[in-house]
Amino acid sequence: MNYYELLKTEGRAKRGVLHTIHGDIQTPVFMNVGTTGTIKGAVTTKDLAENLKSQVFLANTYHLHVRTGDEVIKELGGLHKFMVWDKPILTDSGGFQVYSLAGLRKIKEEGVYFSSHIDGRKLFMGPEESMQIQSNLGSTIAMAFDECPPALADRQYVQNSVERTTRWLLRSKAHIEKLNALEDTVNKEQLLFGINQGAIYDDIRIDHAKRISELDLPGYAVGGLAVGESAEQMYHVLDVTVPHLPQNKPTYLMGVGTPANILEAVDRGVDFFDCVYPTRNGRHGHAYTHHGRLNLKNKAFEKDMRPIEEGCGCPACTRYSRAYIRHLLKADEMTGLRLMVEHNLYFYNNMMEEIRTAIEEGRFAAYKAEMLRCINGDGDI
Amino acid sequence: MNYYELLKTEGRAKRGVLHTIHGDIQTPVFMNVGTTGTIKGAVTTKDLAENLKSQVFLANTYHLHVRTGDEVIKELGGLHKFMVWDKPILTDSGGFQVYSLAGLRKIKEEGVYFSSHIDGRKLFMGPEESMQIQSNLGSTIAMAFDECPPALADRQYVQNSVERTTRWLLRSKAHIEKLNALEDTVNKEQLLFGINQGAIYDDIRIDHAKRISELDLPGYAVGGLAVGESAEQMYHVLDVTVPHLPQNKPTYLMGVGTPANILEAVDRGVDFFDCVYPTRNGRHGHAYTHHGRLNLKNKAFEKDMRPIEEGCGCPACTRYSRAYIRHLLKADEMTGLRLMVEHNLYFYNNMMEEIRTAIEEGRFAAYKAEMLRCINGDGDI
Repeated sequence: MNYYELLKTEGRAKRGVLHTIHGDIQTPVFMNVGTTGTIKGAVTTKDLAENLKSQVFLANTYHLHVRTGDEVIKELGGLHKFMVWDKPILTDSGGFQVYSLAGLRKIKEEGVYFSSHIDGRKLFMGPEESMQIQSNLGSTIAMAFDECPPALADRQYVQNSVERTTRWLLRSKAHIEKLNALEDTVNKEQLLFGINQGAIYDDIRIDHAKRISELDLPGYAVGGLAVGESAEQMYHVLDVTVPHLPQNKPTYLMGVGTPANILEAVDRGVDFFDCVYPTRNGRHGHAYTHHGRLNLKNKAFEKDMRPIEEGCGCPACTRYSRAYIRHLLKADEMTGLRLMVEHNLYFYNNMMEEIRTAIEEGRFAAYKAEMLRCINGDGDI
Repeated sequence: MNYYELLKTEGRAKRGVLHTIHGDIQTPVFMNVGTTGTIKGAVTTKDLAENLKSQVFLANTYHLHVRTGDEVIKELGGLHKFMVWDKPILTDSGGFQVYSLAGLRKIKEEGVYFSSHIDGRKLFMGPEESMQIQSNLGSTIAMAFDECPPALADRQYVQNSVERTTRWLLRSKAHIEKLNALEDTVNKEQLLFGINQGAIYDDIRIDHAKRISELDLPGYAVGGLAVGESAEQMYHVLDVTVPHLPQNKPTYLMGVGTPANILEAVDRGVDFFDCVYPTRNGRHGHAYTHHGRLNLKNKAFEKDMRPIEEGCGCPACTRYSRAYIRHLLKADEMTGLRLMVEHNLYFYNNMMEEIRTAIEEGRFAAYKAEMLRCINGDGDI
């Protein structure tokens, strides 16, 4: 069964829709990152749904596993009910946090042995454990358990790692099918996305893309990017890899990126994105606009009664001034962080809406060129 | 002119309304403390106005003076416009922060010399400076500049201090009248409340109350309480002092208090309150309910899918569970703090509404007794 419908293309850019048990996802889409079951910056799921044009919530399997625990969340009816969100949720596999956050770890064929970043206790996660946790959370889309090798890993390491990732994908697929068939599973329609790896080695990327495409999964991600390589290297990987992933399935570029990155990746056939930039940069006082980034802490905004961006429909811009938000940020008030994060998430989600409309109307190339020209301005306007 | 209308009494309890240029204030009222022009806990002025039953915003003169500066705020149109709030604002005099926060300070007849708590620069504040700052902010109600003597100050110190506070009140009154008459004043209808002092010395309190009542100000506060004395001492001060303040003016008990303190003070004729408890305690995980306080961080709430309080109309209770809020607090997520603060402010503002209705219906005594019985329960329900 195919859950994805390709509605329109322009060059390699795709305008699609993914039908899920929690509603349709219009693509290209940006998924809003809520690590522990909430957006950092005091933004509620109600805000996301009603004011920020958010379609998909991305939650981190590892964080929810170590606190409050996926078994508790399952007992309470799953993550949708727990955080009160009825639209789609994508959970990552937990792998990325295991590699980036956890203490001493050892990668073996069966999975990864590591220590909790909270209390140091010994944990183990392999494909079956990752699927079990994601099944307990009951997300709409589960991600396969993979290894994300270091950006500068040598070819032999990457080759071995990717082969193991393929074996882990087969185990992920087998296990989620088993879990989806169980009586007490939270979401029996949970979808599995596979993940392409291969670092910056074209042939490994291509071989792996071909191999995992044969599995006919509901979607495919390109992983292991935005981990230290240049933007050009990333675009090159997309250029060589995406054509070997099925066009009639959603393509998800994990952890990316800036507005420019997203425009370039959409142009290369990507239709799912996630990134902490809008939330993290917002908390640091950086606002995204159609005219570049603003640092709201700048003295220049002290008496600026304009909104962050004229015409923006976000909760910050429709009511508050740059001067007030700057004041809140300088005073270390959480309200300032919240308004910044709300603005940035709205900007990202709204940009994706603009991208979708542009593809529908056959003018994505022009939209992309104009956006790149504008957002590369000096920004302090 | 009298801005206050006494609508109903029950014993000494007063149900009134203060007519201001920014709208009516129904009393008894709790003013929501937004130190730097926002509520701590990522609650916006929009939330306050639309979801939390807030009538009056209390802003701190000292904090706004040292950052972003009252002159800037005046230039931008005043505090109402700056923080986007069209209901009444009360500003304190700045005195309390000068005594509690600032570095080395020296109290002289002309005012107080002190150092900024932010950058240590030398500052001076006297009655004229305090009125000037509050006039620049354009608040609805300005507080007179007073000295708040230490709770355990000796009689002679308190006597001298109160006499100076009286002289400062006369200077405050003269200066605000002058400022209100100026062409470019933000709020020409700014009201001045005087402040009664006298620590725990009945005769000093009474003499001072009589003396300042002669000035026929739009309202009077009882200051210098909730600074270390017992609740019984505070109630005693109210018992002896309030009868010597005009009943046909609003009576404001500064910086108080718990729900029980408020019920007792309403019963003694107080109709304005402010306190950081609902916000500060909320941020620490403590929720007020009609059945006592809950510590939401308790393990007992891990799987509790009930709202903080059944039947509560706040943004937290109408959507989220104790289990989710506990999870957010344990994970140090700002969203948890926000939901707690929203609940507690709603609880306080809603309790004041219940108090007003009870007085109107002549059943305040019964309401108070029932509330005291309930909120003294063990709370962890």
